[in-house]
Amino acid sequence: MLKGNLVFGQSGGPTAVINSSAAGLLSAALASPAINEVYAAEHGIVGILKDRLFDIRQEDPKELELLTQTPSSIFGSCRHKLADLGGDESEYERILEVFKKHTIRYFFYNGGNDTMDTCHKIGLFLNKKGYECRVVGIPKTIDNDLCGTDHCPGFGSAAKYVATSFMEIKLDSQVYNYPQIVIVEVMGRHAGWLAASSVLASHKGAGPDLIYLPERAFSLEQFERDVRAVHEEKGDVMICVSEGCQDKEGRFIPEMFADNDLSTDAFGHKQLGGAADTLASFVKDKFGVKVRAIEFSLLQRCAAHIASPVDVNEAYAAGETALQFALEGHSDFMLGFERLANDPYSIEMIRVPLATCANHEKTVPAEWINEAGNFVLAPFIDYALPLIKGETNRNEEDGLPRFAKLKKQLVNK
Amino acid sequence: MLKGNLVFGQSGGPTAVINSSAAGLLSAALASPAINEVYAAEHGIVGILKDRLFDIRQEDPKELELLTQTPSSIFGSCRHKLADLGGDESEYERILEVFKKHTIRYFFYNGGNDTMDTCHKIGLFLNKKGYECRVVGIPKTIDNDLCGTDHCPGFGSAAKYVATSFMEIKLDSQVYNYPQIVIVEVMGRHAGWLAASSVLASHKGAGPDLIYLPERAFSLEQFERDVRAVHEEKGDVMICVSEGCQDKEGRFIPEMFADNDLSTDAFGHKQLGGAADTLASFVKDKFGVKVRAIEFSLLQRCAAHIASPVDVNEAYAAGETALQFALEGHSDFMLGFERLANDPYSIEMIRVPLATCANHEKTVPAEWINEAGNFVLAPFIDYALPLIKGETNRNEEDGLPRFAKLKKQLVNK
Repeated sequence: MLKGNLVFGQSGGPTAVINSSAAGLLSAALASPAINEVYAAEHGIVGILKDRLFDIRQEDPKELELLTQTPSSIFGSCRHKLADLGGDESEYERILEVFKKHTIRYFFYNGGNDTMDTCHKIGLFLNKKGYECRVVGIPKTIDNDLCGTDHCPGFGSAAKYVATSFMEIKLDSQVYNYPQIVIVEVMGRHAGWLAASSVLASHKGAGPDLIYLPERAFSLEQFERDVRAVHEEKGDVMICVSEGCQDKEGRFIPEMFADNDLSTDAFGHKQLGGAADTLASFVKDKFGVKVRAIEFSLLQRCAAHIASPVDVNEAYAAGETALQFALEGHSDFMLGFERLANDPYSIEMIRVPLATCANHEKTVPAEWINEAGNFVLAPFIDYALPLIKGETNRNEEDGLPRFAKLKKQLVNK
Repeated sequence: MLKGNLVFGQSGGPTAVINSSAAGLLSAALASPAINEVYAAEHGIVGILKDRLFDIRQEDPKELELLTQTPSSIFGSCRHKLADLGGDESEYERILEVFKKHTIRYFFYNGGNDTMDTCHKIGLFLNKKGYECRVVGIPKTIDNDLCGTDHCPGFGSAAKYVATSFMEIKLDSQVYNYPQIVIVEVMGRHAGWLAASSVLASHKGAGPDLIYLPERAFSLEQFERDVRAVHEEKGDVMICVSEGCQDKEGRFIPEMFADNDLSTDAFGHKQLGGAADTLASFVKDKFGVKVRAIEFSLLQRCAAHIASPVDVNEAYAAGETALQFALEGHSDFMLGFERLANDPYSIEMIRVPLATCANHEKTVPAEWINEAGNFVLAPFIDYALPLIKGETNRNEEDGLPRFAKLKKQLVNK
């Protein structure tokens, strides 16, 4: 068994459960006889470049367990992109230097597509230099767009938040004795998984009438026709729009109006604004009824108070199992999930070659979207429903979340 | 004991717990020997004017109990304002006609300031006409601005949502290795109670650095100085701004820029937009760092999934007790809460004369706001903390809320 020290990093946009993966990995590492020191890098790869590592052995184990209920990236995140291999390799050299200095033999990087790319490049470089180190990616993204895995930790919790909030908003927006059109914007720049999960609310009888995903070209003309049809039939209209929706020319919704030159803000800035806001103005103009735009913004990715227990547990297990695979001698892989069954739901942890997932995006299958491109079909419900089940475990203090408090003691340089 | 039928109505903006008051009142009414038929009006007073009453005896008691976990106004709401007494009294005559037709001897109206005004006027009119009917207001407003009561059902749940969300957003917005300014807008057109509750997040170590309430005149110059001071000290800045903030001239924040004539949307509409959006543009312009505006919108008033159990129970008890008082012979009052102690927290149900609460607004006491007018002080924490305590009771199905399903059978005309 390869003996040495371990370093873990978090990268990309936070989720409600990325810290749960940290808890799973770090707790297992602290208990492993093969691992001597256990470190977490501040701001991911940036912390490695700067040699800013936190000593996890100094932390209270009870606080580490509270990470399962603490949203965001507790060790800090980054969006740092390494240069291509074969070009300027100075940052890789620096990483190697820091790894050697701290006898790092296990490197775990928790993130999305870009993170897996970084992970892959570091693995290749260390290999080229003959430095023995297990390099492992742990998936995380509310966008659910990583290839090679059935789904990604972070998605289930965001989906539970989105579906629940749609149900609540639906009830709220229907109370008055006049029609209202509500447009809700959901994150997902390239893939519509999270926006699609609003259909779970419709499945429960209180969700959107129309759902638009980036997987299909968005047409303002069709949108207007769709809204009119629902409005004429029901009065109230509820719409889910993905922030990533683009027209045939590849323009995002706010950009479709940008050449009007009217979309300047109070300071004369050319301002894109949100998809929902833009569509709300459009609809108000066309229909003359009450219109409301709602953007879930950061709330959808940090709402640990309604995290999916399935998601929290899988994120934790992903960290644990990633270590186990590495201890068994595997490297250069991303931990993935393979779904074995839907009812009862079960998955198996698998290894996905990093090259498979680096920089690729998995989108919602075409056959899960209706022909008109304005709604999501039953197979998606079968896929997503098991990922949001159960009641959230919450450790409250005075009715408010009790987040993990870490000492974050830097390793003596 | 006055015998007859009862009608209940919901009015104004929905909350997470207005249906809990309905559950408390209607269940008690169904069990009372004095009450024969139990009705709920569709869209409040509008449903009475139209003689559209739902027969509550037809409902499944289990579904009525689920109202305690169902947000929004299940029977529909309205913003209908009755004319002043002494003017055109045709709507009052119509109400009397409908009341006589259905032998209504108990009228309960659940809402905010305007609702209490409506209630009061109806009571005066019925009295003038010698028609015996107990008229009772049940409070509800996330704004918490009703006079004569320590606090209002609906506020605790909205405050719990606001404080929890601030904590989660705070963690999310601090992850990157560069400073970020986040501005979150909270509801409250005339009173800052709900915006003030963001200080509960700060009290737990993860909340706003600056809080602006409508109780103090808003100055852009001071705002810029405040933000700069925090930014220079900490880098990251988190700001809570009430939608109701106004400058000395009485202009809301978006209006402070309206004469620039630049705040037109993509369709050339003169658009006010939100306070947070407007301030975000302002701050971006001044500081040149990453700025994010977040508006809680409807989410803050309908998030039953994180409703305060104290609030849910008090809302239920308010409905029950309102009936009890009416059965004892009291009329023309609003059910109110008097706080007896903070630790352990206890309240007493009281009767507040409708004239006291109609059209008056209770604001946050001046001494609970700091001198600079940019933060909230400890007495507010003592006041608000008992109102959000406990873990939310949630009846889930497939990981999603199970809302009450009512038949809403109209009374045969």
